[in-house]
Amino acid sequence: VHAHYGSEIGDMPRRPDGFAHGVKVVPAGEGSKDVDTWASVIEWLAVSGANRKDALVAVGGGVVGDLGGFVASTYNRGIDLVQVPTSLLAMVDASIGGKTGIDLGGKNKTGSFYHPKCVIADPCVLTTLGEREYIEGLGEVAKYAVLDQDFMTYIEGVSDYDIADRRMDVLGELVSRCVQMKSGYVQDDPYEQNKNGGRVLLNYGHTYGHAVEAVTGYNEYLHGEAVAIGMQFALLLSKDLNILTDDSLIERQTALLQRLRLPHEIDTSLLDPNTILPEMAKDKKNTEAGNAKVRFVLPKRVGEFAVEQVDAADITQLLISLSRK
Amino acid sequence: VHAHYGSEIGDMPRRPDGFAHGVKVVPAGEGSKDVDTWASVIEWLAVSGANRKDALVAVGGGVVGDLGGFVASTYNRGIDLVQVPTSLLAMVDASIGGKTGIDLGGKNKTGSFYHPKCVIADPCVLTTLGEREYIEGLGEVAKYAVLDQDFMTYIEGVSDYDIADRRMDVLGELVSRCVQMKSGYVQDDPYEQNKNGGRVLLNYGHTYGHAVEAVTGYNEYLHGEAVAIGMQFALLLSKDLNILTDDSLIERQTALLQRLRLPHEIDTSLLDPNTILPEMAKDKKNTEAGNAKVRFVLPKRVGEFAVEQVDAADITQLLISLSRK
Repeated sequence: VHAHYGSEIGDMPRRPDGFAHGVKVVPAGEGSKDVDTWASVIEWLAVSGANRKDALVAVGGGVVGDLGGFVASTYNRGIDLVQVPTSLLAMVDASIGGKTGIDLGGKNKTGSFYHPKCVIADPCVLTTLGEREYIEGLGEVAKYAVLDQDFMTYIEGVSDYDIADRRMDVLGELVSRCVQMKSGYVQDDPYEQNKNGGRVLLNYGHTYGHAVEAVTGYNEYLHGEAVAIGMQFALLLSKDLNILTDDSLIERQTALLQRLRLPHEIDTSLLDPNTILPEMAKDKKNTEAGNAKVRFVLPKRVGEFAVEQVDAADITQLLISLSRK
Repeated sequence: VHAHYGSEIGDMPRRPDGFAHGVKVVPAGEGSKDVDTWASVIEWLAVSGANRKDALVAVGGGVVGDLGGFVASTYNRGIDLVQVPTSLLAMVDASIGGKTGIDLGGKNKTGSFYHPKCVIADPCVLTTLGEREYIEGLGEVAKYAVLDQDFMTYIEGVSDYDIADRRMDVLGELVSRCVQMKSGYVQDDPYEQNKNGGRVLLNYGHTYGHAVEAVTGYNEYLHGEAVAIGMQFALLLSKDLNILTDDSLIERQTALLQRLRLPHEIDTSLLDPNTILPEMAKDKKNTEAGNAKVRFVLPKRVGEFAVEQVDAADITQLLISLSRK
């Protein structure tokens, strides 16, 4: 991001009182969400003399948003935060909702709920995004589509070419619809306290998806790819448990993921109950950890979902039956 | 604290679901408010499998309260917190108000506003508190007394012996009055947004007091001692600036600090404008940093205060005139 936009950021106007802004660059990748990088940004702010009137502007993808958000929420017990997401994934998901964090004690295990004063999501910057990173962003977009009938109809009507070509009017529409949906869910249930709906529904595809990321050491699947796989698993689980009321969703969701060039089949290496089940039980949103149940967001049909504590035995059964295919 | 109360804590009942509580002991002293100790407590919680239903109970003085509070506010983006302050200072001040923090980027420069679900302040534990630590706690108590006419009258009526002897009925009264006052101020102005009153008044004695702690490297004066000195400085500054309307407060405050065996004179080593002024300008609550003004909470009379941006020149003048005495 710095290579593409660093010089423009450097040219930004100074503060009216003459205090110049500074730029701190952190290395790309999840490795920057560690204690040392967080501490170094805090110390840089302190040495720069940043005070409670200053704001931290996090320009980058999910890593910078999570890290920058956690810095802003903890420096001086909280300074203003502006999120400028530069990846599709960060625009439609990470930059809204106030979740900040670093990977201390586990992935995103340390952090805060801290809302930005402002989010600037400009689809123009997506033209410089890598192809795989663009496609993974569409994984979260697909999740929103299955959550909303109207959005599903819209995206099914857009041509594959326009999406692949990153047409600005299409990107603008995708981003603004996702942002509106996410902020609606977040405003209704800011701290994920509604156990049967609300913000929790945004975790569709994430229970199995997070486990996929974890068992592959976070270096095989990008988050949005893992979510796509997780959506497929949740959908099949919903079918097995007779929660799915409209079987045509299996075909529609698979077709959507295929069109978006996302993974839509589950690799056999991800079907071992001995490795994948414990990871699902570890999820910090899984408040029943310790029990032999895992919480899943399961679709009934497009736009209608159930949140269920699923028996480990039922999950194991699906894993085994998929591995035999 | 662990030597005195560790075994009782170890005997606490287990959780109904059989999950045992664990105890993590951190070394006494401000040194434990560092990044490494914070990270190690987080990692201990993660390894223990603590989840969002668990609570962190911080048993100790201000260091444990600040550190434990910051851990609770950041682990899993926030778990329940119970404060069990074991020093007088922590009981009357640090445990209420939701300020948590560690010394990263400067003293208390990193932290959060995070309120405990519950504060258990039991004056009985003050019997094992060291003498100097007990007296420094009275420094904050004296601050509350000057903030409130009724409290001032009460404490002037208590015998020196009963305070020195730590009589339980007296301690109970002192603690409960301070707690009520502090929680009233905090509820009215939780994030210190009222610039001319509200929670800011609790900083009486703290502008100069913090600078005293800083220039002496945090190892000469305890916080409550520095606050006592800071109250004397603010009072004399208020007199110089003609803000003080009742000159008898000079005698009353000095007498109170003397009776409580607190420092009430300002050592000449603390009067060098070149060292003490920059420290005052650094205070993170001083939003006018960069200007040649420092914010002070200045008494008019008992229970009546002004919050003023004081010119550095006026502060320098007082420092010089005191150093000539």
